[in-house]
Amino acid sequence: MSHKILEITEPTPVPPVEERGNIPDIRKAGLDPDFWYPLARSKDVKAGKAHAVTFAGDPIVLVRSKEAGLFAVEDRCAHRQVPLSVGVVEDGGIRCGYHGWKFDCTGSCTSVPYLDKCTLHPNSIRSYPCRERYGLIFVFPGDAAKAETVPFPEMPAAEDPKYKVRTLDRRIGCHYSFMHENLMDMNHQFLHRRLMGSIKTLFLGKREGPNWVEVDYSFYRKGGKQSLGEKVMIGRSGAAKEIKDKEAAEAEGKKTRDIMTIRTEYPYQTLKFWTAGSTTPALDLWNLYFPVDREQRINQTYGLMCIQRPPIPFLMDILWPAIIWFTNGIFNEDKWICELEQAAFDAQGEDWNHEIFPAIRSVRRVITDNGILIDPSWKGSKSSPEHVRARHEA
Amino acid sequence: MSHKILEITEPTPVPPVEERGNIPDIRKAGLDPDFWYPLARSKDVKAGKAHAVTFAGDPIVLVRSKEAGLFAVEDRCAHRQVPLSVGVVEDGGIRCGYHGWKFDCTGSCTSVPYLDKCTLHPNSIRSYPCRERYGLIFVFPGDAAKAETVPFPEMPAAEDPKYKVRTLDRRIGCHYSFMHENLMDMNHQFLHRRLMGSIKTLFLGKREGPNWVEVDYSFYRKGGKQSLGEKVMIGRSGAAKEIKDKEAAEAEGKKTRDIMTIRTEYPYQTLKFWTAGSTTPALDLWNLYFPVDREQRINQTYGLMCIQRPPIPFLMDILWPAIIWFTNGIFNEDKWICELEQAAFDAQGEDWNHEIFPAIRSVRRVITDNGILIDPSWKGSKSSPEHVRARHEA
Amino acid sequence: MSHKILEITEPTPVPPVEERGNIPDIRKAGLDPDFWYPLARSKDVKAGKAHAVTFAGDPIVLVRSKEAGLFAVEDRCAHRQVPLSVGVVEDGGIRCGYHGWKFDCTGSCTSVPYLDKCTLHPNSIRSYPCRERYGLIFVFPGDAAKAETVPFPEMPAAEDPKYKVRTLDRRIGCHYSFMHENLMDMNHQFLHRRLMGSIKTLFLGKREGPNWVEVDYSFYRKGGKQSLGEKVMIGRSGAAKEIKDKEAAEAEGKKTRDIMTIRTEYPYQTLKFWTAGSTTPALDLWNLYFPVDREQRINQTYGLMCIQRPPIPFLMDILWPAIIWFTNGIFNEDKWICELEQAAFDAQGEDWNHEIFPAIRSVRRVITDNGILIDPSWKGSKSSPEHVRARHEA
Repeated sequence: MSHKILEITEPTPVPPVEERGNIPDIRKAGLDPDFWYPLARSKDVKAGKAHAVTFAGDPIVLVRSKEAGLFAVEDRCAHRQVPLSVGVVEDGGIRCGYHGWKFDCTGSCTSVPYLDKCTLHPNSIRSYPCRERYGLIFVFPGDAAKAETVPFPEMPAAEDPKYKVRTLDRRIGCHYSFMHENLMDMNHQFLHRRLMGSIKTLFLGKREGPNWVEVDYSFYRKGGKQSLGEKVMIGRSGAAKEIKDKEAAEAEGKKTRDIMTIRTEYPYQTLKFWTAGSTTPALDLWNLYFPVDREQRINQTYGLMCIQRPPIPFLMDILWPAIIWFTNGIFNEDKWICELEQAAFDAQGEDWNHEIFPAIRSVRRVITDNGILIDPSWKGSKSSPEHVRARHEA
Repeated sequence: MSHKILEITEPTPVPPVEERGNIPDIRKAGLDPDFWYPLARSKDVKAGKAHAVTFAGDPIVLVRSKEAGLFAVEDRCAHRQVPLSVGVVEDGGIRCGYHGWKFDCTGSCTSVPYLDKCTLHPNSIRSYPCRERYGLIFVFPGDAAKAETVPFPEMPAAEDPKYKVRTLDRRIGCHYSFMHENLMDMNHQFLHRRLMGSIKTLFLGKREGPNWVEVDYSFYRKGGKQSLGEKVMIGRSGAAKEIKDKEAAEAEGKKTRDIMTIRTEYPYQTLKFWTAGSTTPALDLWNLYFPVDREQRINQTYGLMCIQRPPIPFLMDILWPAIIWFTNGIFNEDKWICELEQAAFDAQGEDWNHEIFPAIRSVRRVITDNGILIDPSWKGSKSSPEHVRARHEA
Repeated sequence: MSHKILEITEPTPVPPVEERGNIPDIRKAGLDPDFWYPLARSKDVKAGKAHAVTFAGDPIVLVRSKEAGLFAVEDRCAHRQVPLSVGVVEDGGIRCGYHGWKFDCTGSCTSVPYLDKCTLHPNSIRSYPCRERYGLIFVFPGDAAKAETVPFPEMPAAEDPKYKVRTLDRRIGCHYSFMHENLMDMNHQFLHRRLMGSIKTLFLGKREGPNWVEVDYSFYRKGGKQSLGEKVMIGRSGAAKEIKDKEAAEAEGKKTRDIMTIRTEYPYQTLKFWTAGSTTPALDLWNLYFPVDREQRINQTYGLMCIQRPPIPFLMDILWPAIIWFTNGIFNEDKWICELEQAAFDAQGEDWNHEIFPAIRSVRRVITDNGILIDPSWKGSKSSPEHVRARHEA
């Protein structure tokens, strides 16, 4: 950890803004679809069943078939546009529940029961690259040609037995950018004063690059009591330690003490918390927020909250309910305030935020530089040009 | 029946498309108001009471008065625009419930209680031709001058004691065209596989004209069991007969077997089912789907389902609950899928259907050729020009 | 009272229409914010607490602090736009519940906890003149510079022990203009026929000026029974007296009998009822209807219904439940019909009302002459230009 702290006073210079899109307002920044996104939990897609999801309004059906394994295709029948997810999984494909057209795992139409010799082309639908890991189902909703080269998110702690993992799964009625800002700005612990007591946040510095920003914090307690859940997650010695004198605390914080590092690396966000002297984080959190609807005013979070197991076996398992209670309380307050932010944006019609904190200014830049313009006139799925042509020539 | 079957191979040539309107999308085709439409059941309009309905967003009040009988006028007071249907039926007219203005069965304002000598013209509202038959109340919502010459729908079976009649009355959240397509395409029996078992549909041919299309089908059972309700409605010998060999079935079907004929004759739709050798249909269904709302995304069905009584008296009455159960199950599945179609249309913003079945292509042509453009800017009732003028000069 | 009656035949000539705004439709007339408006009841704002209201969509928080007393500021944090009303009242100001920014009673930002030396300007928000009287909290939502000179509404009866006061507090889903028209047109007693019996309204005359209109009525009962609540409010001898002969009644009414005077003096409305021969009104009602939402399709009424106490002490208190029951019944019918009027307007898209009653024509003129255009593109609070500039330069 120590080398990171040294870098704080010399942040990476911000490179010139990429001309990725001309996004006038952060809340109108669409999430770039050319990444691997977790769109469901593994347990949501039962064997032999279909599960409907949407990514930025695009309907996608996840299918777990015996013959073809897990696959993802557009959730609409090429015939009458009803969702395939209400149909029948059959022989490595899915059959529409209305007139029985069948599509395989590549989206090709392979059977129309009442049509024996017709050319089934171009009745196909789009398919999506799809992978399963960490108990999550990842889909690549953008240009499938890029799926192989775009890095798949690595989260070692989620597969490390030294950690116990809580999978986060929650839907919040706001643009995903509010989520990044919420977590990145640790000054918002004021929001959680009832659950966490009075915490003083120390901003230690930031580093950044074209598609990322990373911020270090330390904390000291000004008052109130640490909850049991927090104590289990990050230990008693860290943020919990009461330091009444602020300057002493700042000196401490900058030296060697507990450190929290929050990083938005587009489109993901991570939070790591190291207690003083440890070389592995006590808490290692990975989050992804994706837009559910076309207007991108609703987001779904899937996250992996990895908590280092204490030396005493089963202690964490016994204390798990306290962790659940504490984190749910925090999440509910965040959901409440982020939905109020979205409501204010909807009423004001444009982003009026008056941001003065450098860390948040950077995260905003990362989101607008790397996002794409939401196209409000865009309707329907991101079909390839051939599909669109076929549809209109039909 | 046999002559019809012969015609199949020589369908009526489709005449050149009438330039009735320039309708770019079937889901934007408004229903032509110049027909007789059932807008309520007789029992919905009690003696001395008013009943509110809407046709494509136009508010209409149906009134059953002792003095003037049944009549239909605009459901708005000329004064303050509140619905007359919340007022009081009185002396062959209806009095507004707010300030007490009164209108007679022609829509003329005949009394303003606090205004003794004012000229009541032009405070009148529109009236509609109105007739009662088959237990339904029919209104002519279009140009009243055409009401006498436009044919009133004839449904002999509904008045024939050899048939028992079920009146259909259901509201579905979709454009009325989905209803025509749903019934016309018998391949959608796949949707009803849980209720009907596995039925193979044989398309025997179609005939068509400028404002109609008629399609013949036969069926054979591939698996599953026939329900009791279906058995009562169409007999055991028909679609219920299991024929495992498909070519044999097709040969059979084309020869003499049970026949179903579905006909859209704008704006109505009928279905007749003849068991082999009979000269009268076992099932004779008449349906009308009208738009309730201005955007025509919700439709109301009124239908007459006439089922031939079996030779044993009262047998059908005893078995009626099974018929109700079976038909309600079918209806609910149709409602579910048609509302999914509308939802897909709403998301896609235009009709993406990729229709390959000739019968449905024809029914789509009939609907767009005979419809009128929905005018999204149109507000309020189809008042005659004089009414509109009076309103604006006021 | 008698001098007023004499004036009836000589109404004040209507002056030329002021060019206050070019309002094409009364339902699109925005309420002029340059008046004192009751936005809450005193009891709604507890000590040390904040209370959120909106005026025409502008969010305003009312705060009752120990140090600074009652004050009103914009209900949004200058930082992230969330409502301050969900924050914490503290030391004569209010602290945002998210990151803890604090604003004083003038709207100036006085503290950002994690920012020690930054210039806090221009992070301030707007404040509003605010006064408390009659158990109501009044705010001046327009140009604060005018607050001192614009007259504060005077309602002596509300502070006169000879009267018992009921504070009215109700929200109705319609443009506020429907409320003025509803009360002003006493012919709408037909609406209340079930509660009041059959009342004949006599229009005695009107007087008017640029921003006001005043109308006198008398009544006689044609049938039905007077309710107990009405009897307590206005006495038995008044409107309750049964006069079967209409001409006699009119003669009576014009002479000396009970008189009701309804006055819209922009933006307020009053109703006074004098029983024959009395010099003080038996019923003295003051009402204000303000728009809650930006589109001004919802209004909130705060009113003071002052009823003269009878000579027998406590009699009114004993009969109070009957008054509550009667007035609530009347209010509910008015709410029902006014919301139907708004629904008709929404469907028709413009005002189609065909008004023939001179009193209502005048009240409509007062509302459009004195209103301002609703700006549908307007988003957010009526910040002063400096605020807007600061926001965009940030």
